[in-house]
Amino acid sequence: MKQGTSIQRGANDPGLINQGRRQILLGSAGAMAAVSLLGFAPLAKAEEPKTLPDYAAWKERNALIVHSTNTMETRRDAIGQGVVTPSDRLFVRNNLPTPPESIVADRDAWEVRIEGVKNPKTMTIGELKDIGVTTTASVLQCSGNGRAFFPHGAGGTQWSVGAAGCVMWTGVPLKDVVAALGGMADGMEYITSTGGEELPDGLDPKQVTVERSVPTRALENALLAWEMNDEPLPLTHGGPLRMVVPGFYGVNNVKYVKQVAFTENQTDVKIQASSYRIRDVGEKGSPDQPSMWEMNVKSWVTSPLETGTSGRNMIYGVALGGTVPLDKVEVSIDGGKSWKAARFLGPDLGPFAWRPFVMATDLSPGEYRIVSKATDVEGNSQPEGRIDNERGYGHNGWSDHGVTVAVS
Amino acid sequence: MKQGTSIQRGANDPGLINQGRRQILLGSAGAMAAVSLLGFAPLAKAEEPKTLPDYAAWKERNALIVHSTNTMETRRDAIGQGVVTPSDRLFVRNNLPTPPESIVADRDAWEVRIEGVKNPKTMTIGELKDIGVTTTASVLQCSGNGRAFFPHGAGGTQWSVGAAGCVMWTGVPLKDVVAALGGMADGMEYITSTGGEELPDGLDPKQVTVERSVPTRALENALLAWEMNDEPLPLTHGGPLRMVVPGFYGVNNVKYVKQVAFTENQTDVKIQASSYRIRDVGEKGSPDQPSMWEMNVKSWVTSPLETGTSGRNMIYGVALGGTVPLDKVEVSIDGGKSWKAARFLGPDLGPFAWRPFVMATDLSPGEYRIVSKATDVEGNSQPEGRIDNERGYGHNGWSDHGVTVAVS
Repeated sequence: MKQGTSIQRGANDPGLINQGRRQILLGSAGAMAAVSLLGFAPLAKAEEPKTLPDYAAWKERNALIVHSTNTMETRRDAIGQGVVTPSDRLFVRNNLPTPPESIVADRDAWEVRIEGVKNPKTMTIGELKDIGVTTTASVLQCSGNGRAFFPHGAGGTQWSVGAAGCVMWTGVPLKDVVAALGGMADGMEYITSTGGEELPDGLDPKQVTVERSVPTRALENALLAWEMNDEPLPLTHGGPLRMVVPGFYGVNNVKYVKQVAFTENQTDVKIQASSYRIRDVGEKGSPDQPSMWEMNVKSWVTSPLETGTSGRNMIYGVALGGTVPLDKVEVSIDGGKSWKAARFLGPDLGPFAWRPFVMATDLSPGEYRIVSKATDVEGNSQPEGRIDNERGYGHNGWSDHGVTVAVS
Repeated sequence: MKQGTSIQRGANDPGLINQGRRQILLGSAGAMAAVSLLGFAPLAKAEEPKTLPDYAAWKERNALIVHSTNTMETRRDAIGQGVVTPSDRLFVRNNLPTPPESIVADRDAWEVRIEGVKNPKTMTIGELKDIGVTTTASVLQCSGNGRAFFPHGAGGTQWSVGAAGCVMWTGVPLKDVVAALGGMADGMEYITSTGGEELPDGLDPKQVTVERSVPTRALENALLAWEMNDEPLPLTHGGPLRMVVPGFYGVNNVKYVKQVAFTENQTDVKIQASSYRIRDVGEKGSPDQPSMWEMNVKSWVTSPLETGTSGRNMIYGVALGGTVPLDKVEVSIDGGKSWKAARFLGPDLGPFAWRPFVMATDLSPGEYRIVSKATDVEGNSQPEGRIDNERGYGHNGWSDHGVTVAVS
């Protein structure tokens, strides 16, 4: 029944266990050999075999579903029960082609322009490192995580549950940078971050530039991060420097950040003005619609996924509260008719982190619909259904995220 | 000044940053190429170049000082500021040759005998996984960490500061196993764990068997762990199953554990009866001397280590309280004449975890003796000097653990 839990993962694969990443990095031979041993086989059948793009070649292929060169999600059975997602299992979603490795050749020399403060300044990472440092655990999740569950076929990557992970970010608190530059200029309402990607030729910058505005309420927790999970921030994930807005959807965590501006208004580039907006099916995007900022409360089961053995079973999953601490997670093995409290597993890394949970239950032979429902300390709880919207954003309905398990 | 911090590490090595472990695992070519770029060069000069033994070939060579086939420590400049030590940087210390990989071929089938309970039983890991699960962060530290600082030349591996790391352990709480077996038998005072290593031919088992007894007060937090840092416990670190006693020195965390017995007395094997005992220089070991059980409060600086640049500097380090939560860490840049409070960095993973700390300070050109001193919530603080003892165990004196930094 534990197939696919991190506990079981690699259980029959001493090579993977003992050579760790080397086994994976042997390439297709090693990787393919591993697949059948990792317990991922059932899901693997559903996919086209795709290789990892060069910029993500260091990732653990067997832990990922490769949707495209710019989109890879963590397999549901590879999420594990860890309080932090290992970097090589974390999902990848890029809006533009990844910049060349040359931008991480001399990390401390990377420059970021700070505007909309009393004393605007261009600063290097080396300078930022002497202003201050903090480490924050926060969930990185794509706005479209769960899109695959929408019946109307929302366009875009068909993410299931794996466009999310919990990451330990290290960098300078943005508020410390602002304080060092004389404070925010008067009348500013938004923090507008601009990515350093080179724009494809012949395209209107307003259509493709990755530039996101978040309300200044995000300043309290935002950081400019140069490290992820205690290693220099990989280029794959926005290195050398990334804007991190704990508790906000992934798109707001601008990669290769080259400018952070405090502004009176939101930027008018497409990714802010009309994209990443919650709107009815069929409607066009516009600035008056809700933008994908704070994440909502959410959870999903990670094990068991398809089969279980009769007797005592451990049901595992992960839950997040967005910007609000979690209060509890309940699990149902009868599709939501009855619920029992699950227990959080491992240390609490703070309000923006996710929390693995576990619930022990006895299962007799039969089929079970296992669902989980998280509630935060403000009483917000996951709805049963989904809120249909054109782009399939922000799905946290507990019903769609459940799993059907056959116990023999 | 940040040379060797995890922030800086690999700063000029996009390969390492983007291909991560693959770069390392390319072997000598890749590894040697990396060395000069990782900022470890100064320390590297001091060592004999040694390759990693096969059972630890998956480790990050450039993060380790290889003392012998059975002993590898984390370089002081590779410890980083993370709340958890990445598995491939964690120190290694084996008392006997590592068992064959075949013992992790079918992890759930591994058997451990539980004795000294009302209903003694042999249980498989698969069965243990259905009893319960917990995840605990705890420092794993060799009793002889810091031995290199003893002037009398205590025998054994000359560990500096790197025979320690903070690990996330997942397994079943031992007290849950005891409860499932009817409770502890009457009159038992110790938990005696036996390792599953095959003993070298022709040696008296009492001289070589890895079997350790800890007081039953350790039952409250002990676990039988099958996972480390969210991956199946590597054979290198005691997989498939290890006895973990949070807050106790490494030797008590018996690898490949095949029996856990609740006993009236401590085992009489050498590693318990006379080894790992605190005794005066020149004295022989005996059962009446203090055994290496609970760890003491300790800290050390990890950056800067040798050189700094004038102006504002960030001083980083790690601190642990053993079994007692930390209260504070103070840092001195004048060899202990004056002290300033450092700030803990990142989330608190609980009483048995270490805590990275940081202190910002302005340094003008000159030479500085930077030392750190941790104090736990019970008021225990690191002594200035060392407590000389025959085997060089338990060194937590702040003076020896300091670093001399030249600022230009």
